[in-house]
Amino acid sequence: MNQLLIVARQEKAYRQLLTRAQLPDLEITENPEHATVILADPPRIADKLEDYPALIWLQSTFAGIDALTRPDIRQDYTLTNIRGHFGQLIAEYVMGYTLDHTRHLSQYRQQQSRHQWRPLPYSSLAQRTLVILGTGSIGSHLARVAKTLGLEVIGINRSGRSQETSFDHVYPLSRLIEGLALADILVSTLPATADTNNLLNAKTLSHCRSTLLFNVGRGNAVCEQGLLNAIAQGCVTHAYLDVFKQEPLDKQHTFWQHPNITITPHIAAESFPEQVFEIFAANYRRYIQQQPMMYQVDFKRGY
Amino acid sequence: MNQLLIVARQEKAYRQLLTRAQLPDLEITENPEHATVILADPPRIADKLEDYPALIWLQSTFAGIDALTRPDIRQDYTLTNIRGHFGQLIAEYVMGYTLDHTRHLSQYRQQQSRHQWRPLPYSSLAQRTLVILGTGSIGSHLARVAKTLGLEVIGINRSGRSQETSFDHVYPLSRLIEGLALADILVSTLPATADTNNLLNAKTLSHCRSTLLFNVGRGNAVCEQGLLNAIAQGCVTHAYLDVFKQEPLDKQHTFWQHPNITITPHIAAESFPEQVFEIFAANYRRYIQQQPMMYQVDFKRGY
Repeated sequence: MNQLLIVARQEKAYRQLLTRAQLPDLEITENPEHATVILADPPRIADKLEDYPALIWLQSTFAGIDALTRPDIRQDYTLTNIRGHFGQLIAEYVMGYTLDHTRHLSQYRQQQSRHQWRPLPYSSLAQRTLVILGTGSIGSHLARVAKTLGLEVIGINRSGRSQETSFDHVYPLSRLIEGLALADILVSTLPATADTNNLLNAKTLSHCRSTLLFNVGRGNAVCEQGLLNAIAQGCVTHAYLDVFKQEPLDKQHTFWQHPNITITPHIAAESFPEQVFEIFAANYRRYIQQQPMMYQVDFKRGY
Repeated sequence: MNQLLIVARQEKAYRQLLTRAQLPDLEITENPEHATVILADPPRIADKLEDYPALIWLQSTFAGIDALTRPDIRQDYTLTNIRGHFGQLIAEYVMGYTLDHTRHLSQYRQQQSRHQWRPLPYSSLAQRTLVILGTGSIGSHLARVAKTLGLEVIGINRSGRSQETSFDHVYPLSRLIEGLALADILVSTLPATADTNNLLNAKTLSHCRSTLLFNVGRGNAVCEQGLLNAIAQGCVTHAYLDVFKQEPLDKQHTFWQHPNITITPHIAAESFPEQVFEIFAANYRRYIQQQPMMYQVDFKRGY
């Protein structure tokens, strides 16, 4: 019998899904010493990994596993995360806020409250350029949606190559500045690694021109003071931030009241239990058959 | 020399585009009696068609030409309208407001004003069904965008057939009720014809269940009292109306203050002069070569 321990905000939902699924040779344990398999939200378990001496495999319920790749904590187990369905949710978030901006949805709401019939000038997305930092499953899905909505799409990653054909161009990170200069809309989907720390800072963002900036990756990628400078100088018109260096964002943080910053509480892509469980169940079957699992994380690369 | 007369709000822009394009054998006239070709906004010219005895061809600057297909005015000339680029704009409008609703953009704005970090439950578009009334170029473009955003898409038209492969199903109008019962999102792109008058009324809308209703076609398709009933009964959760029986909407109209109705001033798809002119120029070349023009309107069908 494999002993599974659950450390997740949605524990109750996962228990119900487990009962329904009847996975072979698997039972839930409450005893940390017996757990060989763990299903966990990374921030909830990162500080107590030492409590699970028998741990062999941990399935993260999040895509973001930076809480578990810190060099000071153990990495002697197999870590898998979830991928795939976040692209849909991120695309909804980015396109929703983009269209809210370009099609003046908020202004029309205000005009309606005044019974005011007044068309506002606009232009379509068809002449704009979207630059996506990160061309993994999220960036690629976003590219496909954006392409259908008429945007020119540029991806930026380490290699400058991608198999996703929806990117009109893929630049290597060495051409970041060139990409930023073309971005009407800039989206960071980057994971938190040493390489992405403050990648978007006063200097790099100074190359943007009236850009809508989205951070849906990890908070570390955006230098907060650099962003404020870039907004003050008109390089960034509006920033949509779903992730922050500290979450929840401090009640006193200057971002809350900034008219050019939209804050959302890390909801751009949520881990819905049904979808997480689907991946867990598929990986569990591979686990017991000793086949390679999906979405294994490389602790060194950090993704 | 062909004599062109312009009757359009954007007359100045069209004059500039004409000067730049240098179309052969064409000059602008101010004399109604000389005009053989007219470029016009339909509502601006409908009541004075008799002033142009030499009229051979009228290029509408709008997609909607119902002002010119009224049976009581002359139809002894060739009428062409514009198509093609509206699909992009309509898709932006529909997906923008849909995502504003499903992803709680307005609530997050309110929460931000209170410095409140509070995730709201949501689900993705991937499990929802979009029903589009009308499968012409607008409906088809919307279907393609919606499909990429994960929606199930049903089209409804006269024949129950469409060449657009993005529709998961196409129903004939006789199955309207069945379609409405499946609609999480319902979009009318229908032209104003005798057949579409009050097609969406208390009776038909009573088959909807918590539906988001969009009217981006023509105001005649929605019975106003029927819509209010459908909202009161929860059949329609929210209506996004860009077109009305009377435009501009009367300042005193009850729709303005209804919390479940969003009003926009006929901006879902605008005729941008550059794009209208592109079609006019292409049609003018066909006209002088006596080839069939694009987007000819059948006065009897009304589209």
